[in-house]
Amino acid sequence: MIAIRKLTDLTAKERDALFQRFGDDFTGIMVNSVIPIVKKVQSEGDRAVIEFTRQFDGVELSRVCATENEIEDAYHKTDADIINSFKRALDNIREFHMHQKRDSFIYTREDGTTLGMLYQPVESAAVYVPGGKASYPSSVLMGVVPAQIAGCKHISIITPPTKDGTIAPYIGAMAHMLGVTTIIKSGGAQGIAAAAFGTHTVPRADIIVGPGNIYVTAAKAYLFSQGVIQIDSLAGPSEVLVIADEHANPHWVAWDLLSQAEHEEMAIAILVTTSESLARKVITYIEEDINSKRGRHEIKKQAIKNARIILVSSVEEAIDFSNTYGPEHMEFMVENPLQYLTQIKNVGSLFLGAYAPVAVGDYFSGTNHVLPTGGAARFSSGLGVETFMRRTSFQYLTPSALKEAVDHVSKMSSVEGFDDKHGDSLRIRFS
Amino acid sequence: MIAIRKLTDLTAKERDALFQRFGDDFTGIMVNSVIPIVKKVQSEGDRAVIEFTRQFDGVELSRVCATENEIEDAYHKTDADIINSFKRALDNIREFHMHQKRDSFIYTREDGTTLGMLYQPVESAAVYVPGGKASYPSSVLMGVVPAQIAGCKHISIITPPTKDGTIAPYIGAMAHMLGVTTIIKSGGAQGIAAAAFGTHTVPRADIIVGPGNIYVTAAKAYLFSQGVIQIDSLAGPSEVLVIADEHANPHWVAWDLLSQAEHEEMAIAILVTTSESLARKVITYIEEDINSKRGRHEIKKQAIKNARIILVSSVEEAIDFSNTYGPEHMEFMVENPLQYLTQIKNVGSLFLGAYAPVAVGDYFSGTNHVLPTGGAARFSSGLGVETFMRRTSFQYLTPSALKEAVDHVSKMSSVEGFDDKHGDSLRIRFS
Repeated sequence: MIAIRKLTDLTAKERDALFQRFGDDFTGIMVNSVIPIVKKVQSEGDRAVIEFTRQFDGVELSRVCATENEIEDAYHKTDADIINSFKRALDNIREFHMHQKRDSFIYTREDGTTLGMLYQPVESAAVYVPGGKASYPSSVLMGVVPAQIAGCKHISIITPPTKDGTIAPYIGAMAHMLGVTTIIKSGGAQGIAAAAFGTHTVPRADIIVGPGNIYVTAAKAYLFSQGVIQIDSLAGPSEVLVIADEHANPHWVAWDLLSQAEHEEMAIAILVTTSESLARKVITYIEEDINSKRGRHEIKKQAIKNARIILVSSVEEAIDFSNTYGPEHMEFMVENPLQYLTQIKNVGSLFLGAYAPVAVGDYFSGTNHVLPTGGAARFSSGLGVETFMRRTSFQYLTPSALKEAVDHVSKMSSVEGFDDKHGDSLRIRFS
Repeated sequence: MIAIRKLTDLTAKERDALFQRFGDDFTGIMVNSVIPIVKKVQSEGDRAVIEFTRQFDGVELSRVCATENEIEDAYHKTDADIINSFKRALDNIREFHMHQKRDSFIYTREDGTTLGMLYQPVESAAVYVPGGKASYPSSVLMGVVPAQIAGCKHISIITPPTKDGTIAPYIGAMAHMLGVTTIIKSGGAQGIAAAAFGTHTVPRADIIVGPGNIYVTAAKAYLFSQGVIQIDSLAGPSEVLVIADEHANPHWVAWDLLSQAEHEEMAIAILVTTSESLARKVITYIEEDINSKRGRHEIKKQAIKNARIILVSSVEEAIDFSNTYGPEHMEFMVENPLQYLTQIKNVGSLFLGAYAPVAVGDYFSGTNHVLPTGGAARFSSGLGVETFMRRTSFQYLTPSALKEAVDHVSKMSSVEGFDDKHGDSLRIRFS
């Protein structure tokens, strides 16, 4: 079923296929579908959003945003037990994200130059929450909490409506729990465009985050490239890379890989291990589960075809592999995992030891689950408070500090062809 | 020459024209020119880079990267006085950027869950430095220093070659001063693509920063959207917004506005003032300068046509205007500027008081000059150490901490349709 391959046996081509898993080229979709949708929403506002929702989702919206009653009803209709679990998760998520806050700083140099940095929230944020086949209330928490802790003044949720034009109940319940009162009931490029430009009823967002389908991704990328909004990293299939040594429990490893496979057909599960014996046992457990046809059988069966098991000769070699791979999630099930902490790089979210399956971080422990995929962990990060902050550098100079700079600025700016007003704008202050 | 307008007299359309100054739609250029260039460089590497440089720049490169000798020669050929000024600036830039570093954190919750965040550098960075009509050695400092302080292992410079195929001397001198040994002598989309994918002679970059022409911008946006690289914000025309009250010196204000106009024909200079008398004097000084035909006369004359002077009734109203505008640079020339610090939002770099003209921050004081334009300061920040850092959240749980989570994770994941392996991946650890 899953082949066990030695890392050293992989061809260059096979390695490239693992490592260079870039996103889909959505340029065609962007040019042919997304840009016309975005431009129509920009010029016609709510009317265009309602029209596209009718056309693409077959849903007739009487208004683009959910009413406060609709949001409150969703909460009250939800089982108290479910609410309770999400509340516990919310406490943990809030606590972890509070640690990410950063204070502005200011200092004065001996020459009289005062310098500093203001860390300020982006004013208006929108969180895309996928709908369709299922709704993802946990993603509401993961998008909204960091924006709230950053201090964003306006926070909206963008999510497709259900078939009868209402909001998915769990999404509404989470919004109410968090105090979010704006839910844009329109998915796809039209929902993104509504938030990016604002409409008569939708507040304009400065940043739009959260994963969606290819239309959502293409709309976010296009509007970012136009300088209209900030975005988080672009979403691809979910990934886990498990590093396990001979001390790891193969049954647990198998279940963690299957938990990843359960997500979607395109999900990627990779085991990198120093133990061939462990690898064989993991395969046996996976086969048993697939043969049992339990749960989301078709999805798991399909996804597990993309799974890979790679044998390495040391934990260090496994870490090197992971550092190059840049996984969204990495489980590190080896003895004394903390001793390797500074060697591990390019991971979205890291799960250390035997008692940290990805599922606990997806929902409960407090870390964020909106993470970079497709190797983007090499250069980008999961959602966090910093995603919703911006920086402003500032400076204040005494006359003598500025005077000290006059000749230097004149020389440097002249070299770059600014031979008149750059230097003179300093000099004038002393003439 | 420049009309003085009361803020309250501006029509909604006039306000929109000021505030919604999005970038050019480069979709056509991207699809027709940039994507084919990028794909050819991806598949053919150095050969394609050399070919495109011949085709677009009329320059015959014998190799894509500058040799170490070429870089060292550039340094030794440069006037010691010039080097000295840049060295002084470098000290200041390093000092300010050192303050931006951030430590990783770790903490343990009472239930036995350990959580933390690793702040790690992106491994490989490339800095685009425009060439063409003039070269910008200061931009080498502004791009490379934050990457070095972040701790990037590989740092390259991408810059167009001079007509004889060598590097612009000041660029080479700065590279040598900073210890950067990789200079890709190719601009435009081909230079960006070479760094994004790597070639036989060019190291692959995880992040590419720095402003360039529309081909550079489109290539950066395209490669970002494909998940290949991280980028900084996309560059548009440079902007200054000056807020001045009746205590400000009109001659100084005029020179600062002209210093902005000196940059390029498209540069934007806006004065927002509480004093009509100051506004009239500023116009007189600007007219005198333009009539004198000093310096970069044609550029200043053209740019000053885009200048605006807006009258407001209070400093608070001026700040509100600036907060909505989101200027790249903001000079705040009022009495007691520091008292307003927390009211000011959405500024790239802020210059407080009478002795902080933009030019001193552009070159010398230590703040970065690669800043968001076109209103992007609403949601993005200038280059800084954080630009070159990424975050990895991590967690370690005790058995009892995980046990506490089992029921909650099962409930929450079931609601989202993951009714089998998500909960079971926790449960298996206790069976």
